[in-house]
Amino acid sequence: MIRFSCSSLTVVAAVVVVAGAAYADVDPLPSWNDGDTKSVIITFVESVTTEGSASFVDENARIATFDNDGTLWVEQPMYTQLAFAFDQVKAMADAHPEWKTTQPFQAVLEGDMKTLGEAGEKGLLEMVAATHSGMSTEEFEKTASDWLSTAKHPKFDKPYTELVYQPMIELIDYLQENDFKTFIVSGGGIEFMRPWTEEVYNIPPEQVVGSSITTEFKMVDGKPALMRTNKIDFIDDKAGKPVGINSHIGHRPIAAFGNSDGDFEMLQYTTIGADGPRLGAFVHHTDNEREFAYDRDTHFGKLDKGLDAAEENGWLLIDMKADWKTVFPE
Amino acid sequence: MIRFSCSSLTVVAAVVVVAGAAYADVDPLPSWNDGDTKSVIITFVESVTTEGSASFVDENARIATFDNDGTLWVEQPMYTQLAFAFDQVKAMADAHPEWKTTQPFQAVLEGDMKTLGEAGEKGLLEMVAATHSGMSTEEFEKTASDWLSTAKHPKFDKPYTELVYQPMIELIDYLQENDFKTFIVSGGGIEFMRPWTEEVYNIPPEQVVGSSITTEFKMVDGKPALMRTNKIDFIDDKAGKPVGINSHIGHRPIAAFGNSDGDFEMLQYTTIGADGPRLGAFVHHTDNEREFAYDRDTHFGKLDKGLDAAEENGWLLIDMKADWKTVFPE
Repeated sequence: MIRFSCSSLTVVAAVVVVAGAAYADVDPLPSWNDGDTKSVIITFVESVTTEGSASFVDENARIATFDNDGTLWVEQPMYTQLAFAFDQVKAMADAHPEWKTTQPFQAVLEGDMKTLGEAGEKGLLEMVAATHSGMSTEEFEKTASDWLSTAKHPKFDKPYTELVYQPMIELIDYLQENDFKTFIVSGGGIEFMRPWTEEVYNIPPEQVVGSSITTEFKMVDGKPALMRTNKIDFIDDKAGKPVGINSHIGHRPIAAFGNSDGDFEMLQYTTIGADGPRLGAFVHHTDNEREFAYDRDTHFGKLDKGLDAAEENGWLLIDMKADWKTVFPE
Repeated sequence: MIRFSCSSLTVVAAVVVVAGAAYADVDPLPSWNDGDTKSVIITFVESVTTEGSASFVDENARIATFDNDGTLWVEQPMYTQLAFAFDQVKAMADAHPEWKTTQPFQAVLEGDMKTLGEAGEKGLLEMVAATHSGMSTEEFEKTASDWLSTAKHPKFDKPYTELVYQPMIELIDYLQENDFKTFIVSGGGIEFMRPWTEEVYNIPPEQVVGSSITTEFKMVDGKPALMRTNKIDFIDDKAGKPVGINSHIGHRPIAAFGNSDGDFEMLQYTTIGADGPRLGAFVHHTDNEREFAYDRDTHFGKLDKGLDAAEENGWLLIDMKADWKTVFPE
């Protein structure tokens, strides 16, 4: 620890990292109701940041991973990226008459949510691959950004990037203030998330892990470009999440937050058989009034075996209705 | 910028980021001879960090990438990871009599450097895949770390991790002090580098991009493990480097350093057709006395079309003999 007094010193452009004790006066999680859930989180953070304690964890090992859909932002009535793909399929349908009889495109054009739900993240990516291949990563980024700037959620009538969970934003901030490195590890498309995660979550592109399609480097008209093919490269879901974490981060996290069985293996990888304190948690969607209530029986974000295994594994269930004062930012 | 005076304040655990001007008195690159090469580097860094200037680049876009073999550490008389693989093949040869007549194993057992050189990074990875599959990533890390702690370079008789280039270490430090995010982008195996890059280069595992074999998540005896298969996942070389950069970093770099034609596309991606200042550079191995001299005609680290294209593209050639006061750390 660097300690200095400065009776006549002016410190310019200083980043001051205040020790944990200073938070005693300021609630780091104001949108969380006081209670067991909040206590478990704060106790965990204090335990790994208290120097000299047996549970202290070096800064470079303070890795926390967050699922995105249903953990940081709304995933009902469908994944946001699916709503995006729907709109792209509809816009391109006249040029593709074969889509009327080819799944999952037929389901999109007919609004068949059940078939689409069963197609899962893989079906979503197939649709994205089909509708977004043959363009550069920069062109794709622009298409996604343009859509996000105009599209609105059907229930809340707000842009999707405003339908993020305020308590989780505070949690990311709190961990960052305590020198955690925070990563998104999502089944969603990595290039769909990166254009906006820094602004919305304060998580930069290089700390976003997601599903991807293959890209190829080419010089196009004398300029370098990465062209998106229609071949799926990696599915960052279920047992793919620890693989994605190892590939992109190269450490096991000490904390992981998810909300569905797609996050089960990430929580196993983070918490089981490890030395030292670990925190694994599911956001449990229990609030049909302020958001949505769902778990074992839903097309998107099914939480079933995770709900059964939580107690045995010491995983925290964050009860959205009971634990959160507010759901969305004001 | 945060500015505060503190007549009666004690600041605890403060990280002070001093503005660029303070470096005017201190040479940030003491192992570099004064001259054009050093000037180009310093002018570039000052141009992107001077607030208010037209060439200023926000901190979050200050991405610099470094090749590893031949750019940050020695790659002659062979890639270090190849020396590692050799020793593994020899240790396992009795159990694999078929290797006596199967390439590239035969070449290893016979010391046939020419055939091995032609096999390239891909041949190296096939050998690593064959000799290091069926174990967990943690077991592999231990094997690699154990080898690095005992193996010595044939010419310099020192551990390989001491045969890093002191001027390049200073360059990484200098960029980090100027709020660059520094990444390794190497054709070498990602899991071979990550155990030691933080200690040696101050580059943490999540900022290392490299070639990889596929891993599979499994619970083994009730504990999570990532098992290494013998299937190559990604070759982070040549046109693969921009792909790896996009996958892991998600930005185009503004500076890239390499030493061979394997870095050609990384330099194109970094410097061509981009807005604002860019720096692309090759370390040119010109010093047979202190290290090795090679470029167009070598099995490892061939620099041929890069040498021809450097002037046209405005890429800097770092002349090891002329530009570096010292090569290795004292």
